Amino acid sequence: MKLKFGRNIVSVEEARLLLAKHAAPLGVERIGLAAAFGRRLAVDVHADHAVPHFRRSGVDGYAVRAADIAEATPEAPAQLRVVEHIPSGTMPQLAIQPGTCARIMTGAPVPDGADAVVMLEMTDGVEAEAATRVWVKKNVEAGSNITPIAGEIATGEQLLACGTRIGPGEAAILATFGCAEVPVYRKPVVAIFSTGAELLGIDAPLEPGKIRNSNSYMLAAQVEAAGGTAMVRPALSDDPAEVEAALREILPAVDLVVTSGGVSVGDYDVLVGVFERFDGELLFNKVAMRPGTPTSAALWNGKLLLALSGNPGASFVGFELFAKPVIDWMLGGGEPNALQQSALLDVDYNKPSAYPRYVRGTRTVVDGIVRVKPAGIDKSSIMVSIKDADCLIYLPAGGQGFPRGELVTVYPTGGSR
Amino acid sequence: MKLKFGRNIVSVEEARLLLAKHAAPLGVERIGLAAAFGRRLAVDVHADHAVPHFRRSGVDGYAVRAADIAEATPEAPAQLRVVEHIPSGTMPQLAIQPGTCARIMTGAPVPDGADAVVMLEMTDGVEAEAATRVWVKKNVEAGSNITPIAGEIATGEQLLACGTRIGPGEAAILATFGCAEVPVYRKPVVAIFSTGAELLGIDAPLEPGKIRNSNSYMLAAQVEAAGGTAMVRPALSDDPAEVEAALREILPAVDLVVTSGGVSVGDYDVLVGVFERFDGELLFNKVAMRPGTPTSAALWNGKLLLALSGNPGASFVGFELFAKPVIDWMLGGGEPNALQQSALLDVDYNKPSAYPRYVRGTRTVVDGIVRVKPAGIDKSSIMVSIKDADCLIYLPAGGQGFPRGELVTVYPTGGSR
Repeated sequence: MKLKFGRNIVSVEEARLLLAKHAAPLGVERIGLAAAFGRRLAVDVHADHAVPHFRRSGVDGYAVRAADIAEATPEAPAQLRVVEHIPSGTMPQLAIQPGTCARIMTGAPVPDGADAVVMLEMTDGVEAEAATRVWVKKNVEAGSNITPIAGEIATGEQLLACGTRIGPGEAAILATFGCAEVPVYRKPVVAIFSTGAELLGIDAPLEPGKIRNSNSYMLAAQVEAAGGTAMVRPALSDDPAEVEAALREILPAVDLVVTSGGVSVGDYDVLVGVFERFDGELLFNKVAMRPGTPTSAALWNGKLLLALSGNPGASFVGFELFAKPVIDWMLGGGEPNALQQSALLDVDYNKPSAYPRYVRGTRTVVDGIVRVKPAGIDKSSIMVSIKDADCLIYLPAGGQGFPRGELVTVYPTGGSR
Repeated sequence: MKLKFGRNIVSVEEARLLLAKHAAPLGVERIGLAAAFGRRLAVDVHADHAVPHFRRSGVDGYAVRAADIAEATPEAPAQLRVVEHIPSGTMPQLAIQPGTCARIMTGAPVPDGADAVVMLEMTDGVEAEAATRVWVKKNVEAGSNITPIAGEIATGEQLLACGTRIGPGEAAILATFGCAEVPVYRKPVVAIFSTGAELLGIDAPLEPGKIRNSNSYMLAAQVEAAGGTAMVRPALSDDPAEVEAALREILPAVDLVVTSGGVSVGDYDVLVGVFERFDGELLFNKVAMRPGTPTSAALWNGKLLLALSGNPGASFVGFELFAKPVIDWMLGGGEPNALQQSALLDVDYNKPSAYPRYVRGTRTVVDGIVRVKPAGIDKSSIMVSIKDADCLIYLPAGGQGFPRGELVTVYPTGGSR
């Protein structure tokens, strides 16, 4: 097939659907909870016990019968006999009878017979293990400072859905339910190649007309931010046979291959040559978007090969739009647009476009309003301003550009905070 | 010193200043660029060469003299003689004379004499190495599709400041300037202890009145999100001597110790006992905030010990307000309030408070407006709703609560996206 001209164009959404068919969650592995932060759960998690599984005191104080202290005031405190001290983690030995109470700590089980806990600060008494009397200076309602059994979580309740990303709150739930080993989806290993005879290694001295390979390291950071494991490979030459051999060699060892460069119409655009000669399935080779119109993807020996445009800005955008969702699907994640937000355009943007545009943007929030503007010079050849981007600004095709104040859709980018 | 009552209270800001004095950046280490994502630079980075360091073609096409094609139209194209093919990475051998041009690829050096590049699509000609004639169908302005030397970055320009977090754009800059090994600040190692006789290991069967240790794993996830290395230690008993020994043992091996529980006024609040007997410097033991008023901190053998309240919600909040900035300072980061945002309160919040309140919140952005509401039940004893929080809502002290629509300050929390 001759691909240099006359390509069929697909939309960004269509391209993502084509990728989604081949980006299922990877295998499941069980890892220690302390290592599971940032990974996605491979199972639903249900409560196998109630939380709390005993009536839990919410404060340090005295477990009482509310009726016993109904008339208590600072002037006329209610006197109660202390029958027991209940530290956290210890089951009460005695039930509370009329006129008695138990000293109780935060988080400890409330004894039978008690229906409220009075805060220590509301009492007078000798603070000692041997104390047997306390004066309560204030009444409380029945139920006060007691979390009932299952007051927080009922047995059988679904707490976390398969695919949920494990953060601090999820880790607390997994620990509570004894998930010392957590089933999570394996992290995808992503091989990264840049192509082009102009590329020098990052530790090489500069040469006339050549540049160091910056795209591979930018993409590696994006892979890590997306939750994958980046494998930076040496830059590739302009020879299709050599490139094909390099790709064939790495495919069995990785879950995804991302290349940058070589997809355009130039004489030396090597990925085009590879696609013309190889035995895989070309998924798309032209996307209705700017930058990165010639972004291409193929399935080869069951593995996805995503070929991004070589300009730094186009590589950055192409990764966010296509590689990030692929990595997240492999990790067990869901809808790639779930993270989209809205913002008010903070500049006039007077560049109409035949294709939808994805502009690197920087957001600010002032008085609760999100404003966004392009990060530096909006040209895909410009690398230096990528560091200032924390989102992509989506600008639909056509029209006369967009005025300041226009409501736009933005996609937070990887590695931004 | 007896600390159970009569503590001196400090504000959150004062507490952070006390911590900041003892949380300097850790030592510098040099790591490979591919491993440096998420770390903070330990040096300023300046450009030691211009970008581009040659006149760079922005498109695939022909390098021309604009004057030669000033009259070109599709009907009357300008004919030029092709003197050379210039792939990317190759220096031109010939200067462009009147009536001549050179085939040139995106990213390749523009030859002397040429002052513009015409896109391939604007030309007619035989697409072959041997072609010696091309017809240009459109005029272009001088300078078109050429990035001049230093058009992106000038020699000597500061590109990245010491302390900058390395994301995709920063990685691209470091690669461009040959920083194969990057000086970054060492990651702090943070020991995490929970205290309380009620705590079971996460792999232990449940027992009456006891709970599994969830705080330690929540805090570990927060440490990792903050950029530190978490070291979860076995839960501690209620015996101050034993706790003191465990802390003394771990201090030399770590950069920060975070404990949860044992800082309140209960009989078994073991950290209070430790602070009463130890030989370190108590920095504070009461903070004007809810939850977590008894949050405490000390300096002990040169290491910071941060003792958080034991309720899950208070631990979560205390970590975000105090441990996260300490970890970020150790990593070379700056102002902890830099990430604060604003949002509109999306519910009536009718709980006035004598102290400022930090409520776990969930943000949504609709039509460019950030709205926030409490994440689940706003009680510090409730663990299950921590997973729904992506920020803390700051609510000042006093007043009658806050109406829906009130502009509030929010702090994005660790592990949220």
